[in-house]
Amino acid sequence: MTVALLGGTGDIGEGLALRLAVDTDRRIIIGSREVSKAQTAASEYKSRLADRSTNAEITGAANAEAVDAADIVILAIPPFHVGDTVESIASQLDEQILVTPGVGMQGDDDGLHYHPPDTGSVTELIAERAPSDVPVVGAFHNLSAERLADLDSELDLDTLIVGDDPDAKDKIRDLANEIVGLRALDAGPLANAAEVESVTPLVINIARYSEGMQDVGVKFI
Amino acid sequence: MTVALLGGTGDIGEGLALRLAVDTDRRIIIGSREVSKAQTAASEYKSRLADRSTNAEITGAANAEAVDAADIVILAIPPFHVGDTVESIASQLDEQILVTPGVGMQGDDDGLHYHPPDTGSVTELIAERAPSDVPVVGAFHNLSAERLADLDSELDLDTLIVGDDPDAKDKIRDLANEIVGLRALDAGPLANAAEVESVTPLVINIARYSEGMQDVGVKFI
Repeated sequence: MTVALLGGTGDIGEGLALRLAVDTDRRIIIGSREVSKAQTAASEYKSRLADRSTNAEITGAANAEAVDAADIVILAIPPFHVGDTVESIASQLDEQILVTPGVGMQGDDDGLHYHPPDTGSVTELIAERAPSDVPVVGAFHNLSAERLADLDSELDLDTLIVGDDPDAKDKIRDLANEIVGLRALDAGPLANAAEVESVTPLVINIARYSEGMQDVGVKFI
Repeated sequence: MTVALLGGTGDIGEGLALRLAVDTDRRIIIGSREVSKAQTAASEYKSRLADRSTNAEITGAANAEAVDAADIVILAIPPFHVGDTVESIASQLDEQILVTPGVGMQGDDDGLHYHPPDTGSVTELIAERAPSDVPVVGAFHNLSAERLADLDSELDLDTLIVGDDPDAKDKIRDLANEIVGLRALDAGPLANAAEVESVTPLVINIARYSEGMQDVGVKFI
């Protein structure tokens, strides 16, 4: 099982790459528009894992090549780019599952606010732009990139899964559950993605206004 | 300190009344449009507390009378009625703090969806309809009424506080923190209420789609 992390050079991509490398036996490919950037990030992540007991295979590749070799494609890309990226890789998509942790937000003096695209959510935007036979799953929202990347930090958090394809959802739930301290919960079909995505500005607002809550995540009890 | 629970005959009102009675020394007035309904509910709650070690004073009154005697007024009222209720008690409001756990939701086959009023959130709707010198605080959203009312159920949950008046927020945070197993976190000013309210449809969707998660609440870790 190979996981491509497009935008894997960014902060949430880094965090997911490191956790997947340490806690799972998935092969990881960092994807970027520039091969050299992807390869540099892959080497850096490998060196950060040097003193961990992992045989993780992390390589870097151009987006198209990364998608081509992957079973699961995680779109760790800013939401305003992600639609175009999905269209740019459409011809490489075959049996892969597309996964998005993307959230549309807007900030003002008071805090961050949920700001979905016209499709209702970023997850549904991706489903609209992807070929119709490619399953899209929303997952890994609401996780602090810093906390994921700090491998000494225990997670004890939940991540919510949304999607319309039960098999694809099961596979992403399994992947998420393999990350130690992360529990995947089902929040229903793609149509329920907005309520999942809107937790991200909320946790950032809590981190800002409540003392000692930086990099906070969510758990459902 | 006296807490009036308008709509205290409903399910979330019942849950809050019982928890406040058991865990705090606040005087509790159940408010309703019909005095007799309020008094019946108050007697019923008292009898449910008969074998608990509490001297809680719970009485029933018409809304206006309940508000008049209260320091804190919790609007445990369906969101489509709450604006009118606020206007109907406006002349009784003086030094009280208005508290709302209200959330606008709409359901379809997929699940529940956040459906705020034009003001952006129910909390902001109430602030708009209340006299301008009355502080409004959003709190006690996202809590299962059944779980609150089941006093044998341990909470271990968070509730999020939003508001523009720091003193009023502090008082409501203190009230929430007095409920055993509930921790109040600050999510910022009223403008951040939508992100807090939208967790309610989310937890209901999780309860529907994830096994063993009925009456689930939220904790920020």
